Parts: sequence; C-alpha cells; structure tokens
Amino acid sequence: MTRFVLAAGTTETATIDGISAAGADPDVMVHTPSADAEILEYGQPVRSPVTPVSPSGCPTPAVVTRAVRDRLGFPVTVVDAGLAEPTAAGTVTVGAHPGGDVRDPEPVPTAFGAWAAAREFGRALPDEELLLAETVPGGTTTALGVLTALGEEAGVSSSFPENPLALKREVVESGLAASDLTAGDCAGQPKRAVRRMGDPTAAVLGGLVAGAVESGTLVTLAGGTQLVAVAALARHAGVETPLRLATTSFIANDSMVDLAGAAEAFNLEVTVTDPGFDDSHVAFERYLAGEAKEGVGMGGALALADRAGIPMAEVREGVVEVYDRLLA
Amino acid sequence: MTRFVLAAGTTETATIDGISAAGADPDVMVHTPSADAEILEYGQPVRSPVTPVSPSGCPTPAVVTRAVRDRLGFPVTVVDAGLAEPTAAGTVTVGAHPGGDVRDPEPVPTAFGAWAAAREFGRALPDEELLLAETVPGGTTTALGVLTALGEEAGVSSSFPENPLALKREVVESGLAASDLTAGDCAGQPKRAVRRMGDPTAAVLGGLVAGAVESGTLVTLAGGTQLVAVAALARHAGVETPLRLATTSFIANDSMVDLAGAAEAFNLEVTVTDPGFDDSHVAFERYLAGEAKEGVGMGGALALADRAGIPMAEVREGVVEVYDRLLA
Repeated sequence: MTRFVLAAGTTETATIDGISAAGADPDVMVHTPSADAEILEYGQPVRSPVTPVSPSGCPTPAVVTRAVRDRLGFPVTVVDAGLAEPTAAGTVTVGAHPGGDVRDPEPVPTAFGAWAAAREFGRALPDEELLLAETVPGGTTTALGVLTALGEEAGVSSSFPENPLALKREVVESGLAASDLTAGDCAGQPKRAVRRMGDPTAAVLGGLVAGAVESGTLVTLAGGTQLVAVAALARHAGVETPLRLATTSFIANDSMVDLAGAAEAFNLEVTVTDPGFDDSHVAFERYLAGEAKEGVGMGGALALADRAGIPMAEVREGVVEVYDRLLA
Repeated sequence: MTRFVLAAGTTETATIDGISAAGADPDVMVHTPSADAEILEYGQPVRSPVTPVSPSGCPTPAVVTRAVRDRLGFPVTVVDAGLAEPTAAGTVTVGAHPGGDVRDPEPVPTAFGAWAAAREFGRALPDEELLLAETVPGGTTTALGVLTALGEEAGVSSSFPENPLALKREVVESGLAASDLTAGDCAGQPKRAVRRMGDPTAAVLGGLVAGAVESGTLVTLAGGTQLVAVAALARHAGVETPLRLATTSFIANDSMVDLAGAAEAFNLEVTVTDPGFDDSHVAFERYLAGEAKEGVGMGGALALADRAGIPMAEVREGVVEVYDRLLA
C-alpha cells in the first residue's frame, strides 16, 4: 500500500513581494497550505476561508491530486510542518513551527527537533511505500537557500510563468549574509542548512526520508525542485538508498530546471507525467501558461494514476469536477 | 460517503481503582486512546508503546473496527478530544484538553469551547453521513455523570464483565457534591453538564452532533452507553432530528443497559450487530466473557460491514488477522 504524506507549512519568505503565486494575494496566501490539506482530505475547504488560486486564477495543484485520490482512494497523512492557520485536516505533530523569513539569521529554529521527530515517525510507519509531498508558499526560494547552503548547483522552479530568479538569488544572498554563511558552508550539515536557510517543510521531509529508508520503506519524492532540495538534504545526511522523484511535465519542461542533472547529482530515478492539459478548460489553461507547475504532490499523484492504469483523460475529467465544485 | 469520526480523549476518572478495563494496567491506560487512533489509521501502533488490552488480555475493539476498515476503506477523522499522550494519527484540533477527575468541581474546563469548535467543524464537513465514535477509558463513569446531571435515568455499561456500578454511583455522587449539584440540575444545559460531570469526548461528540444535523448530515452514534449519553446531550441542546445508534450485541445483551428505553427517551433508531464471536480464538473469547463490549465505534463498523454485504465470518477472519499482527 502506498501512503501519501503531505508536509504542510509556511515561511514568511512567501510574503516578500513577487516571490510566490501560491495564493490570490499575500493576505490569503498564509491559508494555502491549510486549505490544500483540506482539499486533499475532504475534497473542499472546510475550516479554511479560501480555495487557493494564483493571482491570475490558476487553481491549486491540490485540485489535481484530489481528483486522482477520488479515483484511487490512497491513504493520506498530513504532517503539520509549520501551519500558521487552522486546518480541518487531521495533522500529525512533529514540533514544527511556522518558518521565518530566510533573510533572518535563523528562520527555522525548530529544524533539528522536527527533523528528529519526523525521522522517528517515518521509521515507524508500516507502509511499503511513501509518497512525500509539500505545500508551502515561497518554497522554491527556501529550496534555493537550502541548495546554496549545501553547496549544490541545482536550479529551482517557480509558481509564476516568469521565474523571479534574480529576486530569489538576492533574497538568498541576504539570507547567507544574515546567517554569516557562504555557499557550501552547510555541506554535510543538512539540518543546519534548513535552520539557517530553509523552511520547516524541508526539515520534516528530510527527516521523513531518513527514517523511512532506515526501515526499508520505498520513498518517492512527489514534487518539483523543492523535493530535489529534499533529496539533496537526504544525501547530505548520509542517505545512500536510491530515491525516486515523481514530477510533472511542467517541471520537466521548465528551462530553469535541470532534472537530468539533479537525477545524476542525487541518484534519483525520475518519473515525469504529463496530464495532457489543453485549452479546453480554465482549470487547465493557466498550467499551460506556465503557472503552478507542481505542488501538493501533483506529479506523484499523476504517476500513481498512470501506474494504476487510469487514463489521463479520466484524470482531467476529475480535475474539472473538483474545480467546478470549488471554483465555478 | 460515510465518514468515521473518532473522538479520542482521556479523563483522570479512569485512574480510580476498579473503574476501567481499557488498558492492561493503570500506567498504560493513558496510552489507549492514542494507540486506538493509530490502529484505526495505520493498522498498528506507530508512536504508541502499547497495543491496548484489558488486564485479562481482551484486545481493544479498535481491532474489530480496523478489520472492517481493511475491507471497506471508509475515511477516518480523529479529533483530539483531550489526548494525554502522543499519537501518530493525524488529529483535528478543537481546543479540548485532557479531562480531570469527575470528583473534582470542574473536570472539563474546555467543554464550552470544544463543543463550539466541534459544532462548527461538524457543520462544515461535506460528508453525507457521519459515524461518531469514542475512545476514552473511564468513559462509562463520566457518561453516568452526564446523564445524572441532565436528570436522565439511563444506565451505563462497563468494559468489565462485572459492572462496578456501585463504585460508579459513588464516584458520581462525589462529583455532584464537589460541583455543588444535585441530579437534574443541568437539565437543558448540556455543556454545563459536561464541564461539571463529564469528559472531553462528550463535549466534542455533543458539538459534532449539533453541527452535523444543522447542515443536514445524517448522524449515526457508533457505540454503547457513552453514545447514549451523547444523544442525551444533543436532546438537551435542542437537537430534534431523529438520530441513529449502532451498537454491538454485547451492549444489547448487557442487563445493565436498557436500549429500548434509551431509544424511546432520546428518539434513537437502534441497530444492533452481532459479530458472531465464538470460543475459537482468543481475540473473541474475552468478548464472550463480557469484556470490552464496545468502543472505537465497533458496533458502527459492524453495521457498515453488514450494510455492505460483508459476511460476519469474513469480519471475524479480519479480526484474527489484525489480532495476530498486533498481539500474537
């Protein structure tokens, strides 16, 4: 049985102007992870006041993951990786708190404790396979922060069609300076890299990978460049088991992302799934325009659907159903 | 779709000598609700150090509920209704804290807040039907406390073969005296009845019933006399919708319990399901001896299995599977 584990958290880094499109505006973005968890669990927001959309109306990838779950019924566990707003989804506690701004000296003071608790949890889970996913607005910037602190060159994607990479690099430079670090100073010190330059979902996911492989559980990282950063963290923590990355065609087609290079650098078997979106529905067209691209394990959910023999046409019908229920 | 909602909590009342058999000894009983939630969610304890058994080795009814879930795959939501130990099950927060001793003046100071939050949560859940269940050692004593405070005459069951009813009455009398109440003083004041004489699961379940019926959700109370007390709370809160109670044959055959009277008093449509346990397996025989009887929604799960056309012989096979995995 494959269990889908969602690390849902926040970082104040998301409030930097122009960093993230994971919410209609900065005031509601803080609700995105709580709402994503509810959509995954219940099919719609329950306590959360919003259904997450980008400023231009691109629906959260939780809509896609839920559409697949409606068909496959895989079990979901949500880990509180620093939620800042209430969620009606049941959450597992590992001691993570909302993350601070990566330009501060220590944006994730809970990194060591959350990693340790997540590791124990990951080791104890009885499932044969875990799909590990994230929802954290601003997460590609903190992924760049973590990768830089580790001394890794991998690029990062964006929820915007035009990746604000210059801004992200500037933010990461400020963060390094505030943390009194230079690139590569945290090589071999993954928890320190997260504490100084990451967000709490990275601590939780890094710990989960480390614990799961210790008890022989298959791990698939379900996501884009944030999960590449998690792979880097696991490698710097000494995890040597081969890992799998399941992502979307939108990430594979992103010129900022070198998936083959990441696969080589971090020993990842990469699966790319194309949901076949076209311009027939508003739920699809913002993705075609390059928005969102990944998140809430979208690529992993699509891979599960593919593995189960569900045609992408049926997945697309499901996406329209969920979209119409939530946003039409 | 039917969702199973488990209110998992604790009351210090369980530590009174001779009150509860929901744990091998008083030191581990505090883990029972956390472990029950894990068995329901993952099929085995994950963070919890124990698989709950009675002092004589009767397995927790969570084993039965999980066996049914293995076959039907119904969605589960665990509400933290005052857990005192960590659980790896995801939990929904409604502001409940572990309950104090019912002999204290105010054992559930969080009753009003937890009821209100659970009511909002129950109203917002999109499911067509909710099965509401509990796990709280000592819960039949606090159920007697609540029923007495409301002025209702219904009797209560026990996890022991010999119901220590004289002890329970004495404890409830002490509680009334400490709370400066006499029987019936909380009629029409269900939240006050819980705050003074109940446990936190009663507040959560009362609130869930009230909220769910407000949004037209079908409610089945899955359990024994603790769920009868929840029905009483709902009636005293002004809930007029017919409610259903799904329980086990062990409760129906308990001479201390007047199910027909409760059905009449609280307008309950009662379903009794007999799992057909015999002396062929140790997992069954303690139930035949009159232990446990109910809990963790066992009667509701059996009713779901019956409704889905699953023969009880298959349920029994599943119980043995889960038992052997956890306890053999």
